[in-house]
Formats: sequence, structure tokens, C-alpha cells
Amino acid sequence: MRKIITLLALAFCCQGLTAQTYQPTWSSLESRPIPKWFTDAKFGIFIHWGLYSVPAWATNSNADGFGSNYAEWYWERLNNTKLKIHREFVDFHNKNYGPNFKYQDFVTQFKAELFDPAQWAWLFKAAGAKYVVLTSKHHEGFALWPSRESWNWNAYDAGPHRDLAGDLSEAVKKTGLHMGFYYSLYEWYNPLYKQDVNKYVDQHMLPQLKDLVNRYQPDIIWPDGEWDHSDTVWRSREFLSWLYNESPVKNTVVTNDRWGGGRNHGGFTTTEYGSGKASLERPWEECRGIGESFGYNRNENIGQYQTSRQLVHMLIDVVSRGGNLLLNIGPAADGTIPVIMQQRLKDMGDWLQINGDAIYGTTTWREAPTQKDKTVFYTRKGKDLYVLLTSWKQQLSVPAAKASSVALLGFKGKVTYKHRGNNVTIMAPVLSPGELSHQYAWVYQIKDAF
Amino acid sequence: MRKIITLLALAFCCQGLTAQTYQPTWSSLESRPIPKWFTDAKFGIFIHWGLYSVPAWATNSNADGFGSNYAEWYWERLNNTKLKIHREFVDFHNKNYGPNFKYQDFVTQFKAELFDPAQWAWLFKAAGAKYVVLTSKHHEGFALWPSRESWNWNAYDAGPHRDLAGDLSEAVKKTGLHMGFYYSLYEWYNPLYKQDVNKYVDQHMLPQLKDLVNRYQPDIIWPDGEWDHSDTVWRSREFLSWLYNESPVKNTVVTNDRWGGGRNHGGFTTTEYGSGKASLERPWEECRGIGESFGYNRNENIGQYQTSRQLVHMLIDVVSRGGNLLLNIGPAADGTIPVIMQQRLKDMGDWLQINGDAIYGTTTWREAPTQKDKTVFYTRKGKDLYVLLTSWKQQLSVPAAKASSVALLGFKGKVTYKHRGNNVTIMAPVLSPGELSHQYAWVYQIKDAF
Amino acid sequence: MRKIITLLALAFCCQGLTAQTYQPTWSSLESRPIPKWFTDAKFGIFIHWGLYSVPAWATNSNADGFGSNYAEWYWERLNNTKLKIHREFVDFHNKNYGPNFKYQDFVTQFKAELFDPAQWAWLFKAAGAKYVVLTSKHHEGFALWPSRESWNWNAYDAGPHRDLAGDLSEAVKKTGLHMGFYYSLYEWYNPLYKQDVNKYVDQHMLPQLKDLVNRYQPDIIWPDGEWDHSDTVWRSREFLSWLYNESPVKNTVVTNDRWGGGRNHGGFTTTEYGSGKASLERPWEECRGIGESFGYNRNENIGQYQTSRQLVHMLIDVVSRGGNLLLNIGPAADGTIPVIMQQRLKDMGDWLQINGDAIYGTTTWREAPTQKDKTVFYTRKGKDLYVLLTSWKQQLSVPAAKASSVALLGFKGKVTYKHRGNNVTIMAPVLSPGELSHQYAWVYQIKDAF
Amino acid sequence: MRKIITLLALAFCCQGLTAQTYQPTWSSLESRPIPKWFTDAKFGIFIHWGLYSVPAWATNSNADGFGSNYAEWYWERLNNTKLKIHREFVDFHNKNYGPNFKYQDFVTQFKAELFDPAQWAWLFKAAGAKYVVLTSKHHEGFALWPSRESWNWNAYDAGPHRDLAGDLSEAVKKTGLHMGFYYSLYEWYNPLYKQDVNKYVDQHMLPQLKDLVNRYQPDIIWPDGEWDHSDTVWRSREFLSWLYNESPVKNTVVTNDRWGGGRNHGGFTTTEYGSGKASLERPWEECRGIGESFGYNRNENIGQYQTSRQLVHMLIDVVSRGGNLLLNIGPAADGTIPVIMQQRLKDMGDWLQINGDAIYGTTTWREAPTQKDKTVFYTRKGKDLYVLLTSWKQQLSVPAAKASSVALLGFKGKVTYKHRGNNVTIMAPVLSPGELSHQYAWVYQIKDAF
Repeated sequence: MRKIITLLALAFCCQGLTAQTYQPTWSSLESRPIPKWFTDAKFGIFIHWGLYSVPAWATNSNADGFGSNYAEWYWERLNNTKLKIHREFVDFHNKNYGPNFKYQDFVTQFKAELFDPAQWAWLFKAAGAKYVVLTSKHHEGFALWPSRESWNWNAYDAGPHRDLAGDLSEAVKKTGLHMGFYYSLYEWYNPLYKQDVNKYVDQHMLPQLKDLVNRYQPDIIWPDGEWDHSDTVWRSREFLSWLYNESPVKNTVVTNDRWGGGRNHGGFTTTEYGSGKASLERPWEECRGIGESFGYNRNENIGQYQTSRQLVHMLIDVVSRGGNLLLNIGPAADGTIPVIMQQRLKDMGDWLQINGDAIYGTTTWREAPTQKDKTVFYTRKGKDLYVLLTSWKQQLSVPAAKASSVALLGFKGKVTYKHRGNNVTIMAPVLSPGELSHQYAWVYQIKDAF
Repeated sequence: MRKIITLLALAFCCQGLTAQTYQPTWSSLESRPIPKWFTDAKFGIFIHWGLYSVPAWATNSNADGFGSNYAEWYWERLNNTKLKIHREFVDFHNKNYGPNFKYQDFVTQFKAELFDPAQWAWLFKAAGAKYVVLTSKHHEGFALWPSRESWNWNAYDAGPHRDLAGDLSEAVKKTGLHMGFYYSLYEWYNPLYKQDVNKYVDQHMLPQLKDLVNRYQPDIIWPDGEWDHSDTVWRSREFLSWLYNESPVKNTVVTNDRWGGGRNHGGFTTTEYGSGKASLERPWEECRGIGESFGYNRNENIGQYQTSRQLVHMLIDVVSRGGNLLLNIGPAADGTIPVIMQQRLKDMGDWLQINGDAIYGTTTWREAPTQKDKTVFYTRKGKDLYVLLTSWKQQLSVPAAKASSVALLGFKGKVTYKHRGNNVTIMAPVLSPGELSHQYAWVYQIKDAF
Repeated sequence: MRKIITLLALAFCCQGLTAQTYQPTWSSLESRPIPKWFTDAKFGIFIHWGLYSVPAWATNSNADGFGSNYAEWYWERLNNTKLKIHREFVDFHNKNYGPNFKYQDFVTQFKAELFDPAQWAWLFKAAGAKYVVLTSKHHEGFALWPSRESWNWNAYDAGPHRDLAGDLSEAVKKTGLHMGFYYSLYEWYNPLYKQDVNKYVDQHMLPQLKDLVNRYQPDIIWPDGEWDHSDTVWRSREFLSWLYNESPVKNTVVTNDRWGGGRNHGGFTTTEYGSGKASLERPWEECRGIGESFGYNRNENIGQYQTSRQLVHMLIDVVSRGGNLLLNIGPAADGTIPVIMQQRLKDMGDWLQINGDAIYGTTTWREAPTQKDKTVFYTRKGKDLYVLLTSWKQQLSVPAAKASSVALLGFKGKVTYKHRGNNVTIMAPVLSPGELSHQYAWVYQIKDAF
Repeated sequence: MRKIITLLALAFCCQGLTAQTYQPTWSSLESRPIPKWFTDAKFGIFIHWGLYSVPAWATNSNADGFGSNYAEWYWERLNNTKLKIHREFVDFHNKNYGPNFKYQDFVTQFKAELFDPAQWAWLFKAAGAKYVVLTSKHHEGFALWPSRESWNWNAYDAGPHRDLAGDLSEAVKKTGLHMGFYYSLYEWYNPLYKQDVNKYVDQHMLPQLKDLVNRYQPDIIWPDGEWDHSDTVWRSREFLSWLYNESPVKNTVVTNDRWGGGRNHGGFTTTEYGSGKASLERPWEECRGIGESFGYNRNENIGQYQTSRQLVHMLIDVVSRGGNLLLNIGPAADGTIPVIMQQRLKDMGDWLQINGDAIYGTTTWREAPTQKDKTVFYTRKGKDLYVLLTSWKQQLSVPAAKASSVALLGFKGKVTYKHRGNNVTIMAPVLSPGELSHQYAWVYQIKDAF
């Protein structure tokens, strides 16, 4: 008995949460600390998978800035043809499927016949990611789990005839990663939503959210599609007080701040494709695709994909500013992850295996002097300072007053450095080509800099 | 103003209904007279159309008496394989669609691309039918109208992408026939139903029923699938009191008595394929297919279809006992009515055009002496008696005390008859072959027999 | 040894053929008598089945007389849109399948999954037919047997993946009926045909025809699509001399006269839908659908189908003029025969069961006096004369000098008649309605009229 | 007139071919020099695209060495289940498509709807390839061009309904690359082939080959599937003498040596996946996939794909031994090139842009001393020697007697070297990480080494 109590206490302590009761007010809900596992994690995998993975098509540039290269918005584009670029969706659709073929008809082509959750989970772990966020339901309303509230419009009753969310959740957890779910509050064309949002929230949305939590005990609930209504309409505070006080994941769960239109409240801040400015005051997360779409877009070629170098630089930039990177992949309708995405994840994993110390569990160096050189980034962990370089420098002056030693991660040789005033000047070692397996970015670890 | 009131009064009077308020008790609800249009109509068309029209398959005999030849039960048969004959469905399914193909996957093959509601309505009128009852939703739960409560599991969002129920209703009403809807209270696999029937009734069933009534103003609501729960659980009395007191069809609507398991209450009594015994005390209706299935069964050949002669005899038998015949057709998934069914309907219409006087608006002759000859039937209308013969007789003795004249319907010549005691003896006229267009059954009309 | 010779001699004698060698000239080939089994047969079943059975669509009237209601011409209509009515095919196609969907794409929807050759054969026998002619290959070039010359464009390699022609041939022969094959000489879009007709004939057509004969030993070869080239180009005479001299069916096989454009030569004369005038000098055959199309047309409703009465009258008319009726059915792509067609065949069989004596094995009464009454027809067999009436007559004067007895087929009572000059006058018996099972037509048999 | 002759002479001279007539004997045919463009080209792109791109599946390891990871053999695997590993194909097929679904049924799913030949051609050029070889027809017999001899079993009549071969040929030629066609002599299941190979060669194979040459004027004919018959049966010498003497590409065309079972004759030698030993005596070409399959295999993940580094090393190895590398890609059925393949090609192109001098137009250094270090390779061009290193060396001794200068390709700085006896010793320059864009391999150019 005593042992159990101790373990529980330990668990609480590890998560940094005390067992308190939260009120359904923002001030109370936001007083709950964001569990440390999340702010330590830094790198997660976002997965957009749904019926849109069947046509898997969008324009391949976002020329007019209206997200025309988002494949997961395909359905909406067919109906919302105000912009010229959106009409390209209608043209594509009519040419390839005919006007009598409606979006819902894609369902029988979503088969996920090659879906191998263990292989996915292995890949995510190999990528160095610490958590996974799957679109349990996007704006189309199609649920990836056997949702009672969405009968025959979910992946178990229709299409793949499989509990995609559950099977992935199980596999991911087995590897030790955290599992979470994206969930769209609104549904573009759900008539219940359009007719009476309160009934929708009561009969559809809240039961679905609680079902997700109770079934799969996810560590992240990642709402979206909140903009049309206030958190009062969505009854978000009510849900969150349940989530934080009573749910089986009350101690570990994290949410973002997309719980109501107009003002962001709740959990960590999100940015997409570098949009908005993240404050250093709150935990935040940047999400984006490897290409330019979240959902798989067959219309993207190599030119639309970020290189592994760019992705590593992005991770460095985000983490140095205190954020997490939630890098998105768009699996195909057959359940495969396009190999180019596997390649990118593997490359990041290779880099992180050497340089992960400078990423995981770090915080931003708030007091860092203003930096002109946009290829130098800092993170810190305890007394140590990490200097992350996205371009190689023969010599480098770091505004750190102290240093007990300096190392180049992944390099076994010595690194020469000197104290000069309030700076530590590092002389790069001579490295022959190929000596460091990757050439994306280099990290100096300065011990006892603080 | 005055005129309107008069018209309304007339309307009420014509329907035999006075404007009263019904209580949600069976005694009150059943005190409402069944509108006369229904008991006068005698002949209606039943239509079973749904996803089951895609596989359109059942065994072609009901060898074990468990309804294995009902194609509309296809989904249930795939899951309920206790009986050997039911396993034939699984074998058929696996062979033709494969085990990975689920019932829901049929939806994209239900296209109704050749559906022509005006042609259907014309056919029903030509058949001499006075009303039509369409399966707005069968036990599969798939709605044939854009039901908000059944998003993406209805014919407007999925499959045909058309309001099948609405379009047919409009066309049928245009021909002057009455339009009604079959509606299954339960749904085999709806998780809301299985999880919490009260929630199902509240959030799904009652909204659907009211939506049907408000949208299309049908003259018949034909519930089914009631057996698992009492009328209290279904809240049937509540619905009926709304239907009879407030709905837009409160004066004209008819319902059957399938409103709760255990005891039949509500409206007219139903029998299927001659099952059960209809009482002469209440209006009743016999329903059955032209073949042996309600839903279209491609596995039926000519041997399974009733002949036109058999169908006319069935109509005579039913009407002579005070019932209506609701003869079923099973359209194909492409929206066509199999031509053999068109043929049967047309043949009945041809017979009714000559002999309809002995059918429409008649009542049973309650005081008729017991009849040993199973080929002689009676109906009455006002003072007149109709003698319907399913086999020709050279001479016929009718237990009628009076007669002002006797005629053979469709025959212009004179018919000789004699009064003998309490009988009228009719001598058949000499008819050359082919002189009466149909040879299914013959009708003598005895004027002023009562 | 001797026994065999006798049997063979008997076989030859029965077929009326002596073992001679035919030259590849029309005069020699046409000197071969048409086997008696064929002229005795009178009634055969034509079957149009192919890829066109998938769209199964044509206009439902032949308003402009260009065969727009022939569903088997669907492919050609899509390409040949000169006529307004042909453009309706393009509209239908684009609406339902989209412009990117080509005719060849129908192949995977031609599955014949419910094809039951034994049931088909049973039906044909029950119809009273004596032979069957299946489209082994129509103008589309798609072969219904595993034709080596048409790899992957035949029903065995593609679509049904079954030897449809072989399986039907076997079942039909088992019932004792004769089996034959329609074969289109030309193929609309075969590039070999379009590029070099001689190569086509040499490498494709002749090997196919011989393969058909050698594999299935059919009793009829029914060529069509001959109009573009002379019999010299088709090498028809060469083929026929092989067929009549060497082939395994040399003694029994019959062919029609469609072996070359311009002039008809070879076997029996054909007429379609009453087109052309059949000479009494040569055996001939009238072919037509039960509806207005050969290939199944889903766009036909009951109004387009001939009634059973009309079909019986057509058979009487054709046979009285010395012809055979080859009545066509259009099976569906799933292998079922539309039940309305089953009904028609069964009705004809019922009539023939009673009245077949006046049909099978008869000849035309060449010397018959000119007949004004278009409802009286004659056939003869040996010394007997048959009078076939399509409308009932109370009294009938037949221009026959002699008669040893007169009977009404299907009626067990006596028939009264008188000799008056060169006429026999028949007094119709008094029949009550329904006494003769069918009312389509009546037959008097006059014994020893010649 | 004179001008034309001059131009022709020039053309001949440029190709190194004199206008002579070749006899249909191997000695004469092989006396024709292989056009220099081919031996100079070094790097080509192989494309396997066909119906097998629809299932796009094979096992993902070649455990038993029988090619079970070749997706383009899918059809054969379904029928040839002797090996356990081959039975996995049957299991996969039955599970995902059902046993009634045959290979030919994939045809309607081969749509190539996103095929963009200009984008493909751009990619091949960006990869540094000098020629392209497309499977105009693989062993399945499905032609990618509108082949008259393969009506309805080609990409124009069926599936994509497009001249894939022609459209790609045009786009490739527009970029200045050479275009060629793979062509399988045999066809697994073509009944004409199985029944009578001579007829097949005469009526099918030779017409197809000539059609390919005349239509598209390819610079390469790449036969395969020759093993079952001798070149006499295939009539290969006859075809080649036509190709070299009369065809429109007689001066430029190259062929491999797969023209008959048993002995290789004709053109350049081929090796697959490193199989066999290439002689330095004859031009040769190594072909292989980026993954382990030629046809696209969805069952391959990142672990099955060669890295860009490995591919560059392979190119170096092959070219240093006098061969060409024909690197294969497997496009998807929708016409897209999997982006991972695009990535590999682009990486090779980036490396070649810097180091191409050491590849294109080079010959092997025949007299090179035996080399123990497997990371050092040589090529030569004129008087210059290229040393290609697949691992970096601080110092390097090259057995070259002379040198007028030494350069590191892509590096602008000076390279220090010394003459020591018959060697040139090179001291590697100091390079900071990232200074050379790629780290796959490095090339020293030694001027005037010979």
C-alpha cells in the first residue's frame, strides 16, 4: 500500500503536478503547469491522414497565400471556389473523378492495406521524436477510430475497417513515445453542427473527445478548427476541467490553446509554417509539413520538399527559441509513409543521435546577447551552454563568461578554446570531409557556462 | 375567410376526423378513426430500396422458414450465421466481394443513375394503386433522404447523392396518389442504439421521424423493427400524439400498429406473406413481394415470381376480408424497376380498370354465409354486392335475397339471373375466348342486394 | 464395323446430306442442302452478350431509324456522333462514367458472377426453342471464349475470367438443343483490321472461326458484319468449303448468307426486325429482340417489350411463311437473364407445348389461296393442314377440299365441321373463359387435307 | 545535294560509323562499332512501368535469391508458387484483391493521371543522365504504346488511354537526352507465343519491334526475355540487319546482347544487380534499381533503398571498369515518380555537376596497376587521369609517372603534390565541413598523366 502511494507521489512529482482541482475558468485552468515531459521533448511527429489522403492532391504552390497547397482541405476547396486557385481543385476533380463523384465516395478507396503501425512507431523513434500527434478527426469529420458518434463515417466502419488511431496509439506507446490526438472541433459539413452548434457540442463533440481520452489515454489533445465559436460555445473550459481533474490522463496530458475563437487559451501556443510569433513566456510548438502540405499531396515533387538540412536548421531555430517542432508527415491512403518522408525522419534521427544533447530537455538562453549571425543558435541545460551552428566557422566567439570544457558533439578529439573577457573563443578542429557523418549543423557544448 | 373555414370543415368531414386532441395513451390514440382514404384505397405499392439493392442477393427459397430469401437482410445474414442457410450469404459475399469488403463499401455502387421518379409514379398509377410506401430507412439505418441525424449514411450525402425519398414523394403526389414512408425504429448496428437506446430515441429516431413528417408531409408512417423495445422506450405514444395533434398531416396520416414490442397498437394491423390472422374488427394490410423477397434479389428467376393471376387472386382475397394489399417491388441499385415487376403491376392495373368497382371503396360483407367454394369472394359497396370469381362458373348461386340487376364487369351483354328463395342464381353468358381482355378473375355486380 | 457404317449412313440420311466434296464456289457451296434439323426447328434463341451488357444502355426509341435503340452498338455510338440521337450516348456516357472512362474500361465490370448455364439451357428448352445462337464475338471484337487470337480481349482472360461460350455450349447440348455461334467478321476498332484486312483475315478471323468450330463443334455459324468487304476478301468460300468438307460438323452445320458485302450467299436468308422480304424459295430466319434492342438495354421499360401474345403471333406469321424465328434475349453483365425475358420465353413454351404440332417440322402451304383475313395462318405437315388463328372466330371457312377429322389443339372435345364445295367450314366449340390455358392463338388441325 | 552528302558524311563520322551493309551473321553484325555516344554517356535511367505498377508489391527481401523482391514479376509469381516466398504473392493478392480478381483486372487502375513527361525528362537531365530506357513492353506483354499487334492490351487502348512511350520519348528528346526502349522478346502468357513461337515472332514480335523503331526512332533497343529460344527462332539477326542497314536509326542505335538464349550476341553486355562479370573487352552496362526491385514496390521502406552515397559509389565503380550505369526508377501507376527516387537522382546530378568530368567520355585505365585499396578508382580521358575516392584520404599515392597539374574537382584552391619515382603523391587540402556541397566521393584530376 505504502509503496503504491510512493510511486504515485513520485509520478506526480516527476510530472511537476500537484493533485489539485481546477475550476472551469481560464485562470484556474492555465494555472496548471504544462507537464515537463512535453517541454523537454522538443520534437514530435504530426500525422495528417484521412479521406483527403485518397485524392492526395493540392496545387503545388501557395501562390496567393490562401493555403491552396493544403491537400487536407480538398473537400472545402471543391465547394469554396471563390479563388481562382481553388477552382483548380474542381478542375482536377472533374477531370479525374467526374462531377458525379463526391468527396464521400473516396471512402472505399481509403484502405490502409499496407498500414504497419509497428513500422511507423519504429520510424518515429528512429527519427528522434518524443511524441506523435495523429489527426483523430480533421475538419471533414471522418474519425480514425470507431467513434459511436460518427457511425459509418469513421475508419472502422468504413474504408480501412480498422481502428487506425487505436492501433497506432498502441504501437507508439510500446516504443516509449508519447501519443496524442489532433481533433477538429468543427466539421465543415456536419448538418448537426450547421443546424445547432449546441446540440453538436453536446451530442457529438464532447462525447467524442471523452471517448478518445477514455479509450486511448492520450498524452496530448490537440484541438483545431475552433475559430467559428467561443470557448463558451464549445464548452471547452468544462471539458478541460474534466480532463485535468478526472480523466485518466489528468497528470500527463497536454493541450494546445485552440479552444475558442478570438483568444487563445488553454495550453501551449501553436504556430504553423512559421506563422505568428511565439512568445518566450509560454511553451509553444511550431508545426509544418516536410513538403508544403499537411495531408499527402501527390502533386509535390522534390522541389517542394524541405531538405534534411533545412529541417535540422528549423529544429535548431525553434528549440533555441523555446519551442517544440511538430514535424508533419502525410501517409498515403494505402497506409505507407512516402519513403522521402522516411528519409527525412531518418536523417533527423541520425543528426539527433549525435547532437540530441543540445536539443532534448534544454531551455532557451533568455539572457543571450542579441545575435547578428543568423547561423549561430543557443540552448542551455543546467549549467551547460550549447552553441548550434548551421554553418561551419573556423573560429567562434561565444558571449559566455565561463567554461570548464568545450566539446564538439560527435567529435572525439579535443577542441581548443580561450577565455577572452566575457567571451569564450572556440577554434574549430580540423576535420577531414566525411569525418562527421552529417554536415547539417554542428554543436559545441560549453560545460559550466552558467 | 368564411370560405376557408367551410373548406376546412369539408376537409375534416371528408377524412371523417373531427378536430380533437389526442392524449399519449393508447386508448385515446386509438380512438382516432383511421382516415377513410386509406380503407377505401385497397391497393398500395411497397418499395424496398437501400444498400441491399447493390448485392441484391438472397437464397432463392426460404427452406428453413427463417427468411433466408429476404435480400434486405443481407447485412444481418453476414453477421448472424447460426443457420446453415445464412452461411450461404457469407459464401456468396466472400466469393464475389472478398472478406475485406464490408457491407458499408456497397455505398459507392448505389448510384440510382437511371432513377426516374415520374416514370415510377406513372407506373404505380397505371397499376391501379392508390398509395405508395417507400422504405425511408430500413434496419441498416441508411436513410433515403438527406437526414441530418444520419450524415454520410444517407442517399444524399453518399451513394446516389440525391434525395430519393423527396423526389419520389413529389412525383407520386403529382399523380394524385398518397405517399407514405416505411421507417425502421431500430438499426441493427447503430452504436448509439446499441449503447443507449434512450439517447438513440431522443437524438436520432424522433428527430428523424419528425423531419420526415415536416419535410414531406406523408400520408402514411409505416414503422417497423419495433420488437426489441416497448412503446414506452420508443416514446411512440408521445410521437403519435404530436403526429395526430400538431403535425402538418394530422388529419390525413395513417400509421400501422408496429409501435412497440409485445403488443400491437396504434393504427392498422399488418400481415406479411399471409402471416398471422387479420381480424375483421380493425383495418388491416397484407404486404408481400411479387417474388419472395422485399429487396431486389437477383437470385430469383421466373419460378420465384407470382403470376399476375396469383396476384389478382391475392388482392381479391385480401379485399374480401377487409384488408388492403401493399404489394412490394424491389428496384435495382441503378434506379430501374425490374421489368417483370412493371409487367405484374401493369397486369393488375388492366384488371382493375375493368373490375376496380368491386375493390375500391368496398367493405367486407360481414354477414355473408359461410362459403365452401374457395373461388368465390364477396365485397360490398352501399347497397350493391360484388361476387368475385377466381374460376369461371357456368352457373352460380349467390345467397342474396334481393337484386335489381346483375352485370358482369367488362361485359356489355346482358346477364341472366333468377331469384330462388334467398338466393340469386346467375347464368354465365357465353363468351368466346379472348372476349374479356384478362382471364384472371371475373366479377358480377348485383345491384341493390341489401 | 458394319454397325458403325450403318449408323453413319443413317446419320447422313437423317440430315439429308450425301458425303460429297464442295468446291469453293457459290454454286457448289449452295448446292449443299440445308440440314433438315434446321428447317424443322422453327424456333431458336439468339443471345447478345458482351461488354455492351455493362453500360446496357441505348435510347429507348428508334426515332430516326438509325438503330439508336441498339445497346450493342454503344461503343460505335460514342465515336460516331453524326446523328443527334447518337450524341445522347455521349451525354449518357459522360454523365455516368466521365470522359476519361473508355469503353474498354467496362471490362472489369463484366463479371457474369451469377451465370448459370444449366439454368439458361433449361429455360431455352422450356421455351420450346430447338436451337441457340450466342454472340461468340460482336463488332467490338471481344470474344466470349478463350480465343488465342484475341488475348486479353476475351471473357476468359478478362472480365468474367470464364469460358462463357464453352460453358453455355456444353449445357445447351446436354438438353438436346442445337448450339450455334454468331460471329462478327469485322471488328470496328481492331487496328489489324483497319490497317490490312487481308492480314486480319489470315491471322485473326479465319483462325478464330476454325477455333470455334474445332473447339465447340457448333451446329450453326452465324456470320455478321460482312458488309465492308466482298466474300473474296473475307475468304468466305475457302472457309465454307473447309467447313462443309472437312470440319467435324460438316454434316450438321448450318450458316446464314452474310458472307460478303453486296450479295448474300451461303446459307439461309436472315431478316431483322421484319426488315427485307423473305423469299419462299430459300430457308430463312427472322431475328429480333423481345424489346427493341439485341443487347440488354436498361433504358427499356415495359412499353418497349413485346407482349407474349405479340411474340406468339410473330412466330405464327414467320413459320407460316416458311421461316424460323430467332428470338433474342440480352443477358445482364452479371449473368442473369432479365426475368421479363424469362417470362416471355416461358409463355411461348406454354403455348408451344399445346400447339407445337402446328409449328415444328411444318412447311408453308405454298398453294394456299390468297388470304384476306390477317388473323388466319396456315402450315402443313405431310397430309395435314394446320389453321392458326390469332383472333377467335365462331365460324371459319378453310379452302381445303378434304378432311378426315378436325381438332382444336389443347381441347379434348369434338369440333364440328362441314364440307362445302372446296371448303371445310369449322364451327368453333363453346369454351368457357379460362378453359384453354393461353389465349394467344388457337390452332385447328385438319387431318388428311392433302 | 552536295551539302546533304557532306552533312551525312559528317554525321557518320561523328558516330564513327561508315555506311556499310551488315549481313545477318553475328560476325558481321558485331563488326559494327557501338556508337560512341553510348560509351561516352556512362549514366542512363531505366524505367520499369506497367500493370505491375498497380499492385506494386513484392516481398522486401530476396532471401532465397529467386528474385522475390522484383515487383514486375508479380503476375508470374501468382502462377508460379513453387517457392515458399512466391506464395507470399498469392497470399497478398488474395487478401487484398480476392481470388476472383485476376492480374488483367488491374488494367483499369493503371491511369497515369498525373504523368508529366516534361517533368520526368527535366528530372533525368538534372540527374546528369545521358539516356533513358523505358520498358515499352515487359514480360506481361502490355505495351506502353498504341501497338496494333497488342490491341486492348496496351496503354493507349486500355488503362491510361495515352501513348506513354511516345509522350515520354518526345519529352526526353527535347531535353537532348537519348531515348531507348526495353522490349521483352517473350511474353509469359501470350497464347500465340505458347502455341507457335514462329507465328508469334512473325505476326507479333517483329512487327512490334519495327513499329517501335519506325514510330519513335529510338537510340537504344534493349531486348530481354530472350532465354527460351535461340536467336534463330527470334530471327534476331534478320531484325538487326534491318536495324543497322535500313532503319531510320541505323547510324545511332545501340542494342544490348540479349538476342537469343544460350549465347550473348549483338551489342553491349548487360549485368543486373552486379550479377556476372563484365569483360573489359566489350562495352557493358550495369542495371539495377534504387531499391531492390525494378517495378515500384510499395513494400519497400527506407531500409531497402540505396543511399545517394552508395549510388555514387556504384557509378564510380562501374565507370572505372568501363561500364555504364543504367539506374532504374519505378514510377507509380498514377504517373508520379516516388519522391525518394527523385531525391536520389537529384543527388547524383548534384555530384555529377561537379565531378562529371571524371565520368562522361572517359575510358577505363587498362594499364592501371592492381589496386588494393577498394576506395580508389581511376578513369582516363585523353591524357588526363582521374582518381576517384570514395573515402577521404589525407595523402594519396597515385602510380602515375607524369602530371602537369593536379586539381580537386569542385575546389578552387590549390592542391599540393609531389613526384616520387613512378608515383604522384597528393596531399589533401584542408577543407572545412560543408565546403564541398556533397560528401559522397572526391575526384582528383591529374593533367597530362599519360
